[in-house]
Amino acid sequence: MFITLEGIEGVGKTTLLNNLAEMLRSLNHEVLVTREPGGCTLGKTLRGLLLDSRAQLSRETELFLFLADRAQHVAEVIRPALQRGTIVLCDRYADSTIVYQGYGRGFDVETLHYLNDVAIGGLWPDRTLVLDMDPCKALARARKRNTEQGLSDREGRFEAETIHFHTSIREGFLSWAARNTQRMIVLDAADTPKGLLDQALTAISIQIPFPQPPIPKGEKA
Amino acid sequence: MFITLEGIEGVGKTTLLNNLAEMLRSLNHEVLVTREPGGCTLGKTLRGLLLDSRAQLSRETELFLFLADRAQHVAEVIRPALQRGTIVLCDRYADSTIVYQGYGRGFDVETLHYLNDVAIGGLWPDRTLVLDMDPCKALARARKRNTEQGLSDREGRFEAETIHFHTSIREGFLSWAARNTQRMIVLDAADTPKGLLDQALTAISIQIPFPQPPIPKGEKA
Repeated sequence: MFITLEGIEGVGKTTLLNNLAEMLRSLNHEVLVTREPGGCTLGKTLRGLLLDSRAQLSRETELFLFLADRAQHVAEVIRPALQRGTIVLCDRYADSTIVYQGYGRGFDVETLHYLNDVAIGGLWPDRTLVLDMDPCKALARARKRNTEQGLSDREGRFEAETIHFHTSIREGFLSWAARNTQRMIVLDAADTPKGLLDQALTAISIQIPFPQPPIPKGEKA
Repeated sequence: MFITLEGIEGVGKTTLLNNLAEMLRSLNHEVLVTREPGGCTLGKTLRGLLLDSRAQLSRETELFLFLADRAQHVAEVIRPALQRGTIVLCDRYADSTIVYQGYGRGFDVETLHYLNDVAIGGLWPDRTLVLDMDPCKALARARKRNTEQGLSDREGRFEAETIHFHTSIREGFLSWAARNTQRMIVLDAADTPKGLLDQALTAISIQIPFPQPPIPKGEKA
């Protein structure tokens, strides 16, 4: 079981990821929480290059660094965990690249889908939860977090872009999700953390055996 | 004018590159000599990761790191130089990835061609010189050079592979060149350095205005 979380900055992916992991562990599942970029040793080096606002990388370079990070993350972390029977929860994955580089920076979306498919060796998630929210609210949250964590210089690259850009990214996620309804489910991220967790559990429950309420006498299972 | 040199390790690419640059400069051409991986600032970082024998990278990771390096090299170094009218001589380029990853490591060659085309934004060389030589001789030369330069640990990754592998790479270069005869020309690298330079000059002369011998009286130009 491989679940990814997607959406623009500030929609609450990290909080949901942690809440989801806690809930799944309380149900006795083995859970691995990871993220991109930077989910493996190589990735940490690349994450520094990628998120450094000062780096002058061409859009093709940026794209291929994301793909290299992803390929190693799959080979080193995600695939081995899945083979052990662990549930993998990943903060951003291939869909982020498709949406940010495709809808955001003008790369052809089908090309991006193909490049990602090569990088991940066909390992698409079982479920992708897209956290959707008004970009103005989300951006305010992301900025507050970055300032509190002193990350504004190193990690503020995408946050430093305009609201216009984030609006197109939000629309990109919604369009891409609409083309992949078998796998991608859009959640209302303006909900409370508890409400968002409930939405997420509903979205993935069809594949995880949660305790079911007892069936009343006389009814069929 | 964009010229690349290809071939297995030890065939004399660096020597030919230097001799070619010297000859072209003596003819008053602006010449830039560069190489992959590692031809730009980002590339130097990636080159360390790529050529480090100790790195445990998946074949997809390796592929995308090479492509990221190439994309940045094109954007930062090669394309600006060509736009200034400079002749660019590059030690290894897209064909190395296609041959090493395709014929050497089993990636689909058409996929590799497509991925490279995205990375370089369609900037294929005007001429690619493939230096061809018996792998046993070439490998002996590469090992001697690495030992002399104390590079055996850091830069000996490909050299550490078997003769069997290098034979398949040599055959890969010959097959790939046969599919791209408009651009790729195979040279006999067992020739002397002077002889190899002459072969190279002949191969590229159709596009560089070299001094022509005077036309004898009575003959047509």
